[in-house]
Amino acid sequence: MTTSNSDITRILFNPRRMAVIGASANLGKWGHIVPTNIIRGNYTGELFLVNPGGGEIHGTPIYRGLEEIGRTVDLAMLTIPAQQVERVFGDCSRAGIKVVIAISGGFSESSSEGKAMEERMVKAAASYGIRIVGPNTMGIYSAPWSLSALMPPVAPQPGHIAFAAQSGNLGTQLLGWGSHRGIGFSRFVCVGNESDLDFADYLEYFAEDDETKVILLYVEGFKRPRRVLELAERISLDKPIVIYKAGTTRAGHEAAASHSAAMAGSSEIYGGMIRQGGMIRAETTEEMLDFCDALVKTPLPRSRSVGILSWGGGWGVIAADLCERAGFDVSPLPDYAKKSLGDVLPTYWSKGNPVDMVGIVDLDAHTRCLELLSSCPEYDSIISLGTINAATAFGLAQRESEKLDKKLIDVQRQYMEMKASQFGRRVYELMRDLEKPILAVGMPEREKDLQEGSERPNSKICTYTNPERAVRVAEMLVERAEYLRSRQEARS
Amino acid sequence: MTTSNSDITRILFNPRRMAVIGASANLGKWGHIVPTNIIRGNYTGELFLVNPGGGEIHGTPIYRGLEEIGRTVDLAMLTIPAQQVERVFGDCSRAGIKVVIAISGGFSESSSEGKAMEERMVKAAASYGIRIVGPNTMGIYSAPWSLSALMPPVAPQPGHIAFAAQSGNLGTQLLGWGSHRGIGFSRFVCVGNESDLDFADYLEYFAEDDETKVILLYVEGFKRPRRVLELAERISLDKPIVIYKAGTTRAGHEAAASHSAAMAGSSEIYGGMIRQGGMIRAETTEEMLDFCDALVKTPLPRSRSVGILSWGGGWGVIAADLCERAGFDVSPLPDYAKKSLGDVLPTYWSKGNPVDMVGIVDLDAHTRCLELLSSCPEYDSIISLGTINAATAFGLAQRESEKLDKKLIDVQRQYMEMKASQFGRRVYELMRDLEKPILAVGMPEREKDLQEGSERPNSKICTYTNPERAVRVAEMLVERAEYLRSRQEARS
Repeated sequence: MTTSNSDITRILFNPRRMAVIGASANLGKWGHIVPTNIIRGNYTGELFLVNPGGGEIHGTPIYRGLEEIGRTVDLAMLTIPAQQVERVFGDCSRAGIKVVIAISGGFSESSSEGKAMEERMVKAAASYGIRIVGPNTMGIYSAPWSLSALMPPVAPQPGHIAFAAQSGNLGTQLLGWGSHRGIGFSRFVCVGNESDLDFADYLEYFAEDDETKVILLYVEGFKRPRRVLELAERISLDKPIVIYKAGTTRAGHEAAASHSAAMAGSSEIYGGMIRQGGMIRAETTEEMLDFCDALVKTPLPRSRSVGILSWGGGWGVIAADLCERAGFDVSPLPDYAKKSLGDVLPTYWSKGNPVDMVGIVDLDAHTRCLELLSSCPEYDSIISLGTINAATAFGLAQRESEKLDKKLIDVQRQYMEMKASQFGRRVYELMRDLEKPILAVGMPEREKDLQEGSERPNSKICTYTNPERAVRVAEMLVERAEYLRSRQEARS
Repeated sequence: MTTSNSDITRILFNPRRMAVIGASANLGKWGHIVPTNIIRGNYTGELFLVNPGGGEIHGTPIYRGLEEIGRTVDLAMLTIPAQQVERVFGDCSRAGIKVVIAISGGFSESSSEGKAMEERMVKAAASYGIRIVGPNTMGIYSAPWSLSALMPPVAPQPGHIAFAAQSGNLGTQLLGWGSHRGIGFSRFVCVGNESDLDFADYLEYFAEDDETKVILLYVEGFKRPRRVLELAERISLDKPIVIYKAGTTRAGHEAAASHSAAMAGSSEIYGGMIRQGGMIRAETTEEMLDFCDALVKTPLPRSRSVGILSWGGGWGVIAADLCERAGFDVSPLPDYAKKSLGDVLPTYWSKGNPVDMVGIVDLDAHTRCLELLSSCPEYDSIISLGTINAATAFGLAQRESEKLDKKLIDVQRQYMEMKASQFGRRVYELMRDLEKPILAVGMPEREKDLQEGSERPNSKICTYTNPERAVRVAEMLVERAEYLRSRQEARS
């Protein structure tokens, strides 16, 4: 009895019971580290550890064989040497396991012997109707099950981005970056060598997955590019697919061949495929998260008009340049807005777009300016520079009061943080109520001074450390909106 | 008696005695904040505060007039309203003051009345032989004197970058960013409206200044573009000049006019001028510091060959792509290097350039790989990804040992930090001994996990949070080397 691909990926990301085969009581072994990550990640399913040697890991007993468990298991993760993999499928099958994650390396990515071994492994699994993730994978993450079946000790945050990556190192790093920026993931899989399950399978699952609002792909080469294209054309009308294509040069191509055994394919072919599939290309590693985050959190703009709010003149000039170069319409401030903003700002303010708040230190005035500017129907995207890091900027007050008592300094700091939080919350509300993207650039001295984390308001808004990133995101959003409109027109 | 421009700028950045006119005992007034910043910055010259009302600031008495000081003063900073500025020059002249910094806004940047007032002010100063920085400036910084005569409470770090900025907000933010990245400045001036002293004057001084190795300009428009070009052509053969040109679009141009009263000039004209002057154009705000930092810390490469070291496969593929796209020669690993690296790495390593260290956790092996790769005469630039943030990556060990005692966890952490420090120090030594740039990409989860600050080894090396930034810097360095070679050839 074979199980359909979509059932397999559903089981993979929703395992009620999973086993780690090759679990080890020895600190420092992958057989120890992986179960530790699963346990510490608070997996809500049942975890069974298996090793002929027995023992225990963090209080969880190690069974000597799958048969000892006496329960049907959905998923197994293998932390055993490559040579031993093909021998475990019989036991797996008897335990009811439908899919295994093979983290072992040393298969087709490393040598021709490895390639032959990989082929034997896939055949062996197929004879039992078992499907394979990897080999040469760093594992999976699944938010609804709090399942961190991963090699590195990252602690992903739950969210709405589903991510399939052809590099575990890059993939898990993005999970880590996300967790510190308030950017969460619904599902993650490191596709590894794709000896069996491949990008197309994962893409199909993400398309149907209710937890997933945006799909992210880090790709060196597709095994079934035509199938991916077919799927993307359909899926991208509903859920945006952000893609980073690596291995587009000769040097990158060769590096990819030894890394993921991927045939990278020419840049032109992939460029055409990405366009035709309606996918969104991330041009830099940073854009992968920036784009996905914005697509989860912000509405799409109705037009290319943009309003810019700036705390200081230079940053406003820079943001205006960037917006115009990105094809935005930085249209002049309407008279009624000049009047209303003039009631809030000192007489010597800029009276234009960008609205230069000329360094005023009243944070309530910043909020009022944002409300006034973003309420203008003339502007369909808003970029706001410099308020989010108010706590840093106004650190001023703290230095002033060196001689004042500690309590007063704390009160001041709390006040600044409260004001910054209020501003963040207002950004979120305005974005929701006005249905237009508002992108906030904090520009703190240190990234850590930018408010981060799930408890902070910016986990609901998009913040950036420089205007370049904000404008690139705004550009991506407007292109996405235009793509969807053009497809709707084509169909009507 | 008139003093030459070069004497004036020398006095400006090396004031033995300075006065703040308009000093105020009132917390929150600029007349209080500016002296606070000077005092807290530990100015090594003598500071005199002046206000008819008297009082004191942090124990420094406020004189009721300049004449009460009874000493010759070099420099005055004015924290008084615009309308009062033209009246103080007589007193200043009698006190021996040669140059004043006018922070007041409300001059030509804001209205035609302001413009007229600015003209009157310059005339009044000139009649006493006094020169002006600003108005509408945020002040200056001078490292040898620990002088932070600035409005915002930034604490710049001493170093070798001289920076003239047409935006105080942007300028001081860069000082702050630098201080948290181990990037120091020799001098800083916010040029303001350039009613008198202008970019050309500052540039001339920076050229002669022994503290300065690299010059940075943030420019909206030059008052004397021809003079700047003449100077740049000469200076850039000796000291690199990094320039960010803002106001290159219609929207940016208009914003600049209301911000710094600058005539921004067309992008083409400025592009030609930057090239002809041998200046290095920063295309993003981030590149301003990235470029200057590298030009201070790294040697220039002899060719476009690059060797890439990577901890994980995906990042290696990405770096190889970026290098090839930037015009680098990512040439194959020579056989002898394959042999020597093979002695350090597991059998399944990539055997190519990029050298993929396939995730090995032995940090001494990383150092050894770096030594071997950078010693290859085949490679004139080295990009090293993923080791600098070892303390984060190996945070693994910490999570493992939750049950172990606190002391052991601390020992582990210290060990990781020591290894990362050793790696950083070795990067520095290799760069110095081999005379080739080695750029390190840390990619920590949070920027703060990247080692920062003056006590850390990376204050001597260049570190980046993503490969894009490192490759852009490498590209800039090779272009700088090629420019210098082409100019040498032209002269020989």
